[in-house]
Amino acid sequence: MKQMPQEWEGFVGGHWTDEINVRDFIQKNYTPYEGDESFLAGPTDATKKLWDDVMELAKQEREAGGVLDMDNNVVSSLTSHAAGYIEKDLEKIVGLQTDKPFKRSFMPYGGLRMAENALEMNGRTPDPLMHKIFSEYRKTHNAGVFDVYTPEMRAARTSHILTGLPDAYGRGRIIGDYRRVALYGVDRLIKDKQEQKAFYTCPMTDDKIRAREEIAEQIRALENLKKMAEIYGCDISKPAVTAQEAVQAVYFGYLGAVKDQNGAAMSLGRTSTFLDIYFERDFKLGRLTETEAQEIIDHFIMKLRLVRFARTPEYNSLFSGDPQWVTESLGGIGIDGRPMVTKTSFRYLHTLENLGTSPEPNLTVLWSPRLPDGWKRYCAKISINTSSIQYENDELMRVTHGDDYAIACCVSSMRVGKEMQFFGARANLAKCLLYAINGGVDEISGVQVAPKYRPITSEYLDYDEVMEKYDDMMSWLAELYVNTLNIIHYMHDKYCYESLQMALHDREVRRYFATGIAGISVVADSLSAIKYAKVKPIRKDIEVKDKKGNVLYTAKDVVVDYEIEGDFPKYGNDDDRVDEIAQMILNKFMDKIRQQHTYRNGFPTTSILTITSNVVYGKKTGTTPDGRKQGVPLAPGANPMHGRDTHGASASLSSVSKLQFSNAQDGISNTFSIIPDALGKDGGVFVGDLDLDALKK
Amino acid sequence: MKQMPQEWEGFVGGHWTDEINVRDFIQKNYTPYEGDESFLAGPTDATKKLWDDVMELAKQEREAGGVLDMDNNVVSSLTSHAAGYIEKDLEKIVGLQTDKPFKRSFMPYGGLRMAENALEMNGRTPDPLMHKIFSEYRKTHNAGVFDVYTPEMRAARTSHILTGLPDAYGRGRIIGDYRRVALYGVDRLIKDKQEQKAFYTCPMTDDKIRAREEIAEQIRALENLKKMAEIYGCDISKPAVTAQEAVQAVYFGYLGAVKDQNGAAMSLGRTSTFLDIYFERDFKLGRLTETEAQEIIDHFIMKLRLVRFARTPEYNSLFSGDPQWVTESLGGIGIDGRPMVTKTSFRYLHTLENLGTSPEPNLTVLWSPRLPDGWKRYCAKISINTSSIQYENDELMRVTHGDDYAIACCVSSMRVGKEMQFFGARANLAKCLLYAINGGVDEISGVQVAPKYRPITSEYLDYDEVMEKYDDMMSWLAELYVNTLNIIHYMHDKYCYESLQMALHDREVRRYFATGIAGISVVADSLSAIKYAKVKPIRKDIEVKDKKGNVLYTAKDVVVDYEIEGDFPKYGNDDDRVDEIAQMILNKFMDKIRQQHTYRNGFPTTSILTITSNVVYGKKTGTTPDGRKQGVPLAPGANPMHGRDTHGASASLSSVSKLQFSNAQDGISNTFSIIPDALGKDGGVFVGDLDLDALKK
Repeated sequence: MKQMPQEWEGFVGGHWTDEINVRDFIQKNYTPYEGDESFLAGPTDATKKLWDDVMELAKQEREAGGVLDMDNNVVSSLTSHAAGYIEKDLEKIVGLQTDKPFKRSFMPYGGLRMAENALEMNGRTPDPLMHKIFSEYRKTHNAGVFDVYTPEMRAARTSHILTGLPDAYGRGRIIGDYRRVALYGVDRLIKDKQEQKAFYTCPMTDDKIRAREEIAEQIRALENLKKMAEIYGCDISKPAVTAQEAVQAVYFGYLGAVKDQNGAAMSLGRTSTFLDIYFERDFKLGRLTETEAQEIIDHFIMKLRLVRFARTPEYNSLFSGDPQWVTESLGGIGIDGRPMVTKTSFRYLHTLENLGTSPEPNLTVLWSPRLPDGWKRYCAKISINTSSIQYENDELMRVTHGDDYAIACCVSSMRVGKEMQFFGARANLAKCLLYAINGGVDEISGVQVAPKYRPITSEYLDYDEVMEKYDDMMSWLAELYVNTLNIIHYMHDKYCYESLQMALHDREVRRYFATGIAGISVVADSLSAIKYAKVKPIRKDIEVKDKKGNVLYTAKDVVVDYEIEGDFPKYGNDDDRVDEIAQMILNKFMDKIRQQHTYRNGFPTTSILTITSNVVYGKKTGTTPDGRKQGVPLAPGANPMHGRDTHGASASLSSVSKLQFSNAQDGISNTFSIIPDALGKDGGVFVGDLDLDALKK
Repeated sequence: MKQMPQEWEGFVGGHWTDEINVRDFIQKNYTPYEGDESFLAGPTDATKKLWDDVMELAKQEREAGGVLDMDNNVVSSLTSHAAGYIEKDLEKIVGLQTDKPFKRSFMPYGGLRMAENALEMNGRTPDPLMHKIFSEYRKTHNAGVFDVYTPEMRAARTSHILTGLPDAYGRGRIIGDYRRVALYGVDRLIKDKQEQKAFYTCPMTDDKIRAREEIAEQIRALENLKKMAEIYGCDISKPAVTAQEAVQAVYFGYLGAVKDQNGAAMSLGRTSTFLDIYFERDFKLGRLTETEAQEIIDHFIMKLRLVRFARTPEYNSLFSGDPQWVTESLGGIGIDGRPMVTKTSFRYLHTLENLGTSPEPNLTVLWSPRLPDGWKRYCAKISINTSSIQYENDELMRVTHGDDYAIACCVSSMRVGKEMQFFGARANLAKCLLYAINGGVDEISGVQVAPKYRPITSEYLDYDEVMEKYDDMMSWLAELYVNTLNIIHYMHDKYCYESLQMALHDREVRRYFATGIAGISVVADSLSAIKYAKVKPIRKDIEVKDKKGNVLYTAKDVVVDYEIEGDFPKYGNDDDRVDEIAQMILNKFMDKIRQQHTYRNGFPTTSILTITSNVVYGKKTGTTPDGRKQGVPLAPGANPMHGRDTHGASASLSSVSKLQFSNAQDGISNTFSIIPDALGKDGGVFVGDLDLDALKK
């Protein structure tokens, strides 16, 4: 039998020794843990001291108005900064995005204006040399996109029928398999990439030239990752030997990614069970105590909590805060039926006790009724005490993604290192319905945004006529939407390629081409009103003005309000008459998305998950035929409109759960509040498999 | 009838008023001139003074070792420099590449190393900031290419079977239609480009996204062209009114190109007959004298003589000097049979008398027996006196390109503003023959460069066996060659796009995918020797060494010499036995080129025109079966090997002329020296249509 490298001593071999295959390593080596949390250790003095330092800095940051320090003339890269520490001697896991904690880096590749606005909004001055370099010599993603947008795309963006498009910032939603750095060491990964590059031979078509250049960039990123580790005195060219080295290597992989990219969601992956193998080995060898193990994890999580980007107030208002979506996926069940919960899964959650609550990293439990009881109870306890855990339905996602997927951002599932997502923001289907009624004229500005289809001119809205026109308008919107995204992703690859994250992926990556829907419940209720009640549109003329306020022309007879006579079934009450409308709209729109050409043959998915941005979208959407007034927030995600689900929680959940997951594979969100006591008390009857499990929350 | 803009008063209208169509304008408005040179005027005092200044600077440049001044920290762009003059008050045509005459600009986009080497070789220090910008933030064409090359491509490049590849410098061979700037003004050109951009609609495929982005870059370049003119106090947003404005506008167009690109050949186009229309109008309006007209042309040509680039000694040795190929095509016959010679054609040639001889601009006469006698005689006179005129066969090229084509570089013909060329350097077919004999092992280094096909092991070379193996090796070479060029042109478009030159082209441009052949006569003679004489290969072992000189391995039995018994027919003697071999090889190789996928569906052409680089190629080619020893220069272009054409000039020319133009559409060169008296004396019997016309020289 082949001799394994010394660093792998004690591990069970398998395919993973001959190929890059972290899942195989995990399955061959992990130790499921069925016990409770009693083994856990509290924070060490070093942890407490470090965390006090962090809290003090956080306080200073708040007092400084949200940002403590920012670079304006150092372009962030893996090797752009000297080593940075909180307190060097106390840190078990080292590495900061810049040379100081809480100092935000300068990342212009996504878009110069965004990077400069972030500086100015935080009272800093953009650097003239950087401005010259990134406007004259080096084009950005944002500049590329705006060079190519059609006037129609710009208009749709301005009117917010397409909204939140990642055209001025990093798209995110790509998870590098940071575990590979620990398991294989960077040298082996580089060798693998060199072999991948050699795979693409003549004829040198554009696609193959691009593939070879991208892999060359990935190799360069891996070389730089080694250099970055060297700055901290670490050698990650070889596999990790100890648990501490393994955690450090995983973190270095992730740190490289957040030095390279300011993505909308920079998620971590699924690391706890992987790392647990190293902890178990160290325990077996008697070279680690539980306190030391917890300290390593505490320090790792502390570093993840320090991740920060320079962003603008508009960005923060869209996302309701300043999120990084450092999502870590915990638990779940393996394909072979064994729970994938380990002691280190507990250690991750335990950081919420040792360090206190925190929205980041976004600790996400992959939920299954088959999870061990001790884990379920501990999750419930931490949820109740900290409200800091997210749950996702492992039963649903395992079918598609197997047992080595992770969540990017809040719900986007992908196989780690094998799949990625082109993030696509949202199309506002509620506004699209209004465009169908008004023949493409925007109900707020009066501008002709969509094609000049015939508007509805009748006194009352006729369901069949509205549906026919809506169908056409959705076709237009789906085409425009996907093509806008084609431009965005082409330019992101060209000007802001995620070379390190993609270096931690396989050669052939499945690319999900994500789209998103906003306003589905408003659409369902509106169409229900038109079908089951009588809806009379109210029309008025709108003066279209230029930026200076001069009237350019008057849009005639634009429907801006509705009078509803009679009642109608409302989404959220388990009433098929309207729930089926919601399903139909989702299915129709998804098929229209699927009909389009997608960049790099991306696999189209959609999501219904405007968890916070529904407020902003509502502001930009006129009065709808369901009685919702202009400016009122849309319901979040696939939620029923607030207050309309009058038949209780179960009926409400049932309506949402009718939406087909296969047509909204990137996730359906349902924001649902219940009084904690309704779930039972800690130590009491905990109902682990709520109906919620039918949803991908 | 539509009112024409004031600037066009006096011109005959046509399609050109409604669309960008310079040819139509020329055909509707030009005045052929059938007279002699007696109308021409000598240089003005201002011209003499300016030229004295230039000569003094040229002297200083020579004394300084070839370069007078260089930028190292200003990236050349249309607007990078303040206005520069020789003597401002005397100049009728203004504009320099930098802010001083003879100061060479810094152009890193093609390749940083090349730009920095040019600095260092000329005793300058590269700027550290520029180094950082163009190695960390902004990738170059050269960096992109080397990221993608396969090891085989690198080996072929190192062994010089592929050679002169434009992978470290600008490819050149693109002629912007600089006349458009004068005729339409930049604002109209921008409007046209905006309409072109709108042409590319959904679905947004990669090709359309690229097209839209390129046009956006073109529009930006046109905006910058206006700004560049403003720096000199000129407004080129509107059409030119006077001849001086027209010449100035054409020159600004060209100047923008040489500020933007350091191409291997930056040719001017075909401007004299176009500009003559403006001169004629000014004469009719009584606002110009012949002396003033000549002064404008003298100053224009003087500026073209000042064009300089920062280059390296290796580059200069390949090209035997420091050429810019500012080629201007003069004369020719129109499709309607009228000669396109005008008084301004004479004025251009007359600069060789007023300013003295010069290799640049490369004044090229499009020759036809039907040209007016006065023009023929004047061309002959200037040729005899200055040796500074190039002739090309209009009869041949007009068939393919019509009457508004021009020559890029030395022989590449293209319709101005409608066609461009991806320049492709050369494949060494003589070395390819040696690879066929040695099974892909390089005859000088012993390295396995080509595939490990079976070598020839027999005592004597058998023609059929050699041909079979040569056929296979040419297939390999053609595939490798075209795919290497695919990478080069992909990366040039990506990192060093010729935005201004392409802004002066139509929307849909025909792209010639140029390839080139070196060593055809050596191949023909070698195969003839194998077929008609007896050729015995001499084999020896070659030690393959690494860069430090350590022996890596020994290549066994490599054929490095040949013993030839008996005589054989030699190319250049009008002997079909060998001439047909040359034709067959050309036709075979061209078909193999045509079988490949070409970047952007470029239209494959080839050329046989190593006018000077044949010396360098010969150095890298081992001994060949025709008796030529290792290192001896190949014959230039399609020339017979020196001294082997023993049957007189006519037979020699006849051999060359048998090569099919349709299979070498980018040109066949034949370097041919004759005693001037052989052509008759000036004023005597001038034979205008020599056999030379059968060639595209």
